[in-house]
Amino acid sequence: MPVSLGELAVRFGCELVGDPDVEVSSVASLPNATRDSLTFLSSSAYKRQLSETQAAAVILRPADAGDCPVAAILHHDPYACYARMAAVIHPPPAFDAGIHPSAVVDASASIADSACIGPHVVIGERAIVGANVFLGPGTVVGPDCSIGDDCRFIASVTLARAVHMGRRCIMHPGVVLGADGFGNAMTPEGWVKVPQVGGVVIGDDVEIGANTTVDCGAIDDTVIEDGVRIDNLCMIAHNVRIGAHTAIAGQSGIAGSTTIGKRCMFAGSAGAVGHISICDDVVVLARAVVTRDITEPGSYSGLFPAESSRAWSKFVGRLRRLEALQSRVKKLEGK
Amino acid sequence: MPVSLGELAVRFGCELVGDPDVEVSSVASLPNATRDSLTFLSSSAYKRQLSETQAAAVILRPADAGDCPVAAILHHDPYACYARMAAVIHPPPAFDAGIHPSAVVDASASIADSACIGPHVVIGERAIVGANVFLGPGTVVGPDCSIGDDCRFIASVTLARAVHMGRRCIMHPGVVLGADGFGNAMTPEGWVKVPQVGGVVIGDDVEIGANTTVDCGAIDDTVIEDGVRIDNLCMIAHNVRIGAHTAIAGQSGIAGSTTIGKRCMFAGSAGAVGHISICDDVVVLARAVVTRDITEPGSYSGLFPAESSRAWSKFVGRLRRLEALQSRVKKLEGK
Amino acid sequence: MPVSLGELAVRFGCELVGDPDVEVSSVASLPNATRDSLTFLSSSAYKRQLSETQAAAVILRPADAGDCPVAAILHHDPYACYARMAAVIHPPPAFDAGIHPSAVVDASASIADSACIGPHVVIGERAIVGANVFLGPGTVVGPDCSIGDDCRFIASVTLARAVHMGRRCIMHPGVVLGADGFGNAMTPEGWVKVPQVGGVVIGDDVEIGANTTVDCGAIDDTVIEDGVRIDNLCMIAHNVRIGAHTAIAGQSGIAGSTTIGKRCMFAGSAGAVGHISICDDVVVLARAVVTRDITEPGSYSGLFPAESSRAWSKFVGRLRRLEALQSRVKKLEGK
Repeated sequence: MPVSLGELAVRFGCELVGDPDVEVSSVASLPNATRDSLTFLSSSAYKRQLSETQAAAVILRPADAGDCPVAAILHHDPYACYARMAAVIHPPPAFDAGIHPSAVVDASASIADSACIGPHVVIGERAIVGANVFLGPGTVVGPDCSIGDDCRFIASVTLARAVHMGRRCIMHPGVVLGADGFGNAMTPEGWVKVPQVGGVVIGDDVEIGANTTVDCGAIDDTVIEDGVRIDNLCMIAHNVRIGAHTAIAGQSGIAGSTTIGKRCMFAGSAGAVGHISICDDVVVLARAVVTRDITEPGSYSGLFPAESSRAWSKFVGRLRRLEALQSRVKKLEGK
Repeated sequence: MPVSLGELAVRFGCELVGDPDVEVSSVASLPNATRDSLTFLSSSAYKRQLSETQAAAVILRPADAGDCPVAAILHHDPYACYARMAAVIHPPPAFDAGIHPSAVVDASASIADSACIGPHVVIGERAIVGANVFLGPGTVVGPDCSIGDDCRFIASVTLARAVHMGRRCIMHPGVVLGADGFGNAMTPEGWVKVPQVGGVVIGDDVEIGANTTVDCGAIDDTVIEDGVRIDNLCMIAHNVRIGAHTAIAGQSGIAGSTTIGKRCMFAGSAGAVGHISICDDVVVLARAVVTRDITEPGSYSGLFPAESSRAWSKFVGRLRRLEALQSRVKKLEGK
Repeated sequence: MPVSLGELAVRFGCELVGDPDVEVSSVASLPNATRDSLTFLSSSAYKRQLSETQAAAVILRPADAGDCPVAAILHHDPYACYARMAAVIHPPPAFDAGIHPSAVVDASASIADSACIGPHVVIGERAIVGANVFLGPGTVVGPDCSIGDDCRFIASVTLARAVHMGRRCIMHPGVVLGADGFGNAMTPEGWVKVPQVGGVVIGDDVEIGANTTVDCGAIDDTVIEDGVRIDNLCMIAHNVRIGAHTAIAGQSGIAGSTTIGKRCMFAGSAGAVGHISICDDVVVLARAVVTRDITEPGSYSGLFPAESSRAWSKFVGRLRRLEALQSRVKKLEGK
């Protein structure tokens, strides 16, 4: 959607250095920008690309304005400003309200008139779908689920049962919410399934990435608070609670009954074992696994970076011979 | 489904301390239980919560009966007893037999009269669906698959082809069985696909979690034996064999042609490389990766727990300087 | 499809030691082969099985021909030769062109007459489907996608939007392409979503395994070059570029904006952090995570194999006491 630089600057309270009537109709990276595109500079690592950009305008910090060869939109946080402006230029696709004739909606379900129920969607018993909700093709909403206003399910999302979702959430394809948690009791005859009767409660403004799963609670609910962001292929086990505005990157896994605080960040393939508690403002770096309560905000690590197999093999060998080294030191001390 | 304490006690052979006519209609955790709910105490860690519970009855060990302020159901394994009683109170949802008009069933498929084929299900050539099977919405059963009696596919399950499943299995949404294994032969012109012509054989009483994949065999079959439990987002590669009653937690991966024994347990994100053999009764702890045959039952580990990034960085630095330390010791020894 | 040994030998330029008129109608492993099956010996580890095979013929290296008790097809690379011959004996299932009546195809989409659009498929606005494409049941092709000739989507594949795929690609069930990347800008009010407006560009002859996700680019495209093979449950984040003929095994993850060269191999659960560059011909072994640019071809590792929990615990304890050992050495040196 074309929009003028002046309108963007006014709407988001930025200073504009340049012609307010110039329109931008797309976003672009600094090197690939063309004269109708908006771009941004948020990291000095890319400053070299600034001088040659062909963009209509660049969002950047006031301190960088002098180096900008085109119109400049000044903001102390160019990336956040870009995010908001990009959403004006590239809004989510519009949709028409209504239920596609191929959708199968249970008679006991309640669907807002303004909702869009796509092709081959299935909606189960007693489900409630709020205003302006978009349920993309192939989505399944199981029994006893409720979906708040303005949620968008892109396509192929499955809510097994008893999922209660707030407003403005975005669910990507392959997301599975409310499937049974992994509850099994060992007996002499083998595993006995422990019925998983809790639900999933999801706050407002939550976004969940493709093929991620959030299991229902065993007895009480699994809870994802407001503003949480979860990337692709993550596993959130039963009875986990994730605090507001926490972000969890791809392939991370949180085991059962663990509580994570607010504004935490998990990098890719990070994780936490079950039945622990992690306080607010904790950052868990890539592939690190938290195995105990964390009560201090801060950054936590646990990864040995890959190195050449030869160097790694020497390194591991040396560690394995540490016992021998200890003995040698002991012997020296004895002398 | 409401049921009296007396009936539960008789049915599962427990001693009841309390009024047998009291009915319970739900399960609950100790602190959240109300006067119509059944709860349990299986770990002394929660004993503190026992004294204040409002439950109708608590399942617990005889030794804990004296501390129970409400009716007590005595069992030496309260968790397993709870699992069985909870299944009586919260049975899986009932369903009506029949094929939904939106389902697409190939003429060569054979569907038991008592099966329930949900909306938008697709059933391929020569597939066989047994008695009392429930195939939830959006499920795809590819050609040459057979599904034993009393299986339940919650929704959105995909069987690619040649999957043979026993009785009473439960498949959660997003499960993919029988997709091609990762078979590629390198040639000067790039990878050549190796046709994957084996199937998947799944025993009785197997449960597989959301978005888990089990690939078909390259030539012979991939085999999951009776009573196996697999959690979400696991990957079981081609020609793996998993022994009866083994349990595999979320995001674990078993590489091709590996054989796992009976009653093993893999904790979250654990794994095994390909072409190895793991004996019965092996426990692989969180994130550990088995790289060699295991012939001794027991517990296996391989994880460095996360710690503060500062401490981790010091730790890794110290390990990296081990070579220097060795040299210093050598020098001392030379004196 | 039955085929004579003579035809196979001529077609793939192999020497045949045996009767060219014998027909094979299936492939098999050495020990399970029967008199109508073709098998192969590519590793000396299985040579023991050669003498007792009941196969019609064995593909093997000329040097092994003397030990072959049945007909021998000689090739310097028996596994690649097997892959090609197996594809003749077990070709992908044939299909009839046409659009299933239950499919929902947008009026603005363009579908080749020779394509097969299966049951419950949904095809969105402006999508283009090429000649001889097979879209299996439950597949969703979102707006602005294009699928090249001869692609096969087994079932339940979802293309969110703006995915451009070359020819002869194979997509397995649960694959999600073109979902939004994980782009979020932190603000005092919480995360602001960064619109993901790039697409996904996939070359020719790419195969992607079950439940793998490839996100769309944030601004520019995510790119998977020709001949790439990706296994199940992998995550390819936004703006990653994967070079031609690279193979990535199950549960691996490549974080955003990372570039991987040609002919690389990632073993199971391997990975790379974001914003790095890996040169051609790099092998990353199981569970290793690349955290820096790699400029030298070769093999890279980072895994501590699992060992008995007791041995592991001792090992870790010893590493933790390394600081004390250093002090002791220092003290000795002081003497």
